[in-house]
Amino acid sequence: MARRPGPTRRVRVLELSADKAQRREDRLATEEPLEIRLDAPGLPIERFGITMRTPGHDFELAAGQLFAEQVFDAREDLRSIAYCTDADLSDEEEFNVVTVHLSTQPAVGWQARHVSSACGVCGKESVADVAVAASDIRTDLEVAASVVAEAPTRLRQGQRVFASTGGLHAAGIFTLDGRLHVVREDVGRHNAVDKAIGHCLLEGVDMTASMLCVSGRVAYEIVQKAARAGISTIVAVGAPSSLAVDVAERIGATIVGFVRDDRMVVYSHADRVSHTTTPPVDRND
Amino acid sequence: MARRPGPTRRVRVLELSADKAQRREDRLATEEPLEIRLDAPGLPIERFGITMRTPGHDFELAAGQLFAEQVFDAREDLRSIAYCTDADLSDEEEFNVVTVHLSTQPAVGWQARHVSSACGVCGKESVADVAVAASDIRTDLEVAASVVAEAPTRLRQGQRVFASTGGLHAAGIFTLDGRLHVVREDVGRHNAVDKAIGHCLLEGVDMTASMLCVSGRVAYEIVQKAARAGISTIVAVGAPSSLAVDVAERIGATIVGFVRDDRMVVYSHADRVSHTTTPPVDRND
Repeated sequence: MARRPGPTRRVRVLELSADKAQRREDRLATEEPLEIRLDAPGLPIERFGITMRTPGHDFELAAGQLFAEQVFDAREDLRSIAYCTDADLSDEEEFNVVTVHLSTQPAVGWQARHVSSACGVCGKESVADVAVAASDIRTDLEVAASVVAEAPTRLRQGQRVFASTGGLHAAGIFTLDGRLHVVREDVGRHNAVDKAIGHCLLEGVDMTASMLCVSGRVAYEIVQKAARAGISTIVAVGAPSSLAVDVAERIGATIVGFVRDDRMVVYSHADRVSHTTTPPVDRND
Repeated sequence: MARRPGPTRRVRVLELSADKAQRREDRLATEEPLEIRLDAPGLPIERFGITMRTPGHDFELAAGQLFAEQVFDAREDLRSIAYCTDADLSDEEEFNVVTVHLSTQPAVGWQARHVSSACGVCGKESVADVAVAASDIRTDLEVAASVVAEAPTRLRQGQRVFASTGGLHAAGIFTLDGRLHVVREDVGRHNAVDKAIGHCLLEGVDMTASMLCVSGRVAYEIVQKAARAGISTIVAVGAPSSLAVDVAERIGATIVGFVRDDRMVVYSHADRVSHTTTPPVDRND
């Protein structure tokens, strides 16, 4: 039986400070390739792709990524997910290959889309397409600024690996009244989001009235993944990109960035964030 | 003539703090798709791929990415790089499509490789392959700890956009005695590295005795890109991943992480980092 890779690994390092040099042990976030294979009724098993990831919650990652890529649409389309036991695989590889068994045919065109490029976007039309495909996330549900303010702290509390390595992105999914569903970590920021959404998919958690909180920045793909899951509120410790805000504005999603130290900046659909302060003053600068 | 997209964009935001709400103007890092097309002698023009990026230094990004992907091997293989003037493109798209004209045939197999997955890695064999392909970066050239310590500060000083948006990754290339060649920024960390390396390629800067400094973390792909350019030293404000350190150890590259406040951690080939402190003491913990 192969050794299952853990989320961190010990290494010997040399630490240099102003006045001393010291060899000591350190922990690194593990990064290893995960190959995802797809098995659908009546079709040969095919390789979907390879992702560099931190081992752990691999089935959630596979489910989340295939869902984001629109290979399947709902929990019912999944028959099972398993590590591969292919005799050709070495012991080290055994836990780095996952097969997703679908109970339905994958969505038409997934191969063409997957093959075409590293990202699903090409010019204005595609951005408009995303807006149309995800238009159903527009909602009147409010989220309190106090709930938003607490999310990054609670995300950090939920991170098991970060504290020991300082090297991982985190993503958490909360209800709009602040109940935590799940926190997931990964060396890749998109993987952390895929794992968190994959967890909710596999557990049957309804994400339509929920909030995604990420430890870093929000670029277009994070909004795309959230929208696909029906998540209407994205909270980030860092800044959003211009395209993230454009798309969020169009599809009805609220983005709150720079949530730190009693301060936050609302970039889209600010009317959904309830707060007790006096009405905003317009400042022109 | 189309408007050329800038690296930042103004938006109106709502800022909430403990006791007030204020509408004001903010700046976001621009994120837009860049389509890279490839034109080689005797072949039809083909789409290489699409990357979400911050506009600016697009030719460097295209050159750096195609070099990293081994589509071409040296400056001499490039005939020219230009924005596309395809009549089918809308005004908005004109500056989001770049064609790279090669003077030679692209390396055999680039299409197969590009099509296969989002990343060039699959299991142990491939990691070993990288080590073999890049084994020539092993060097005896030393870098002083004092030069390493200053790199992140000088990287930040060279960042033009970050200060106004807080939303960009940076990558800089320095000589081993601390002379700065270039700093580049992007919403994507890999893009920042591709731009910096692309700049050096286009300007004919020899990278074999140089140092790459990045504003974030070091995962496998950063090491892969540096190794392809012959860069022997990677300095980061954040942590490396396990695979980054494994590959660096094998190919002879030095990784220094957590370079902050008079402290740094050397993860591989520490013998190349010269320092004036007393010889290291082994600590067992």
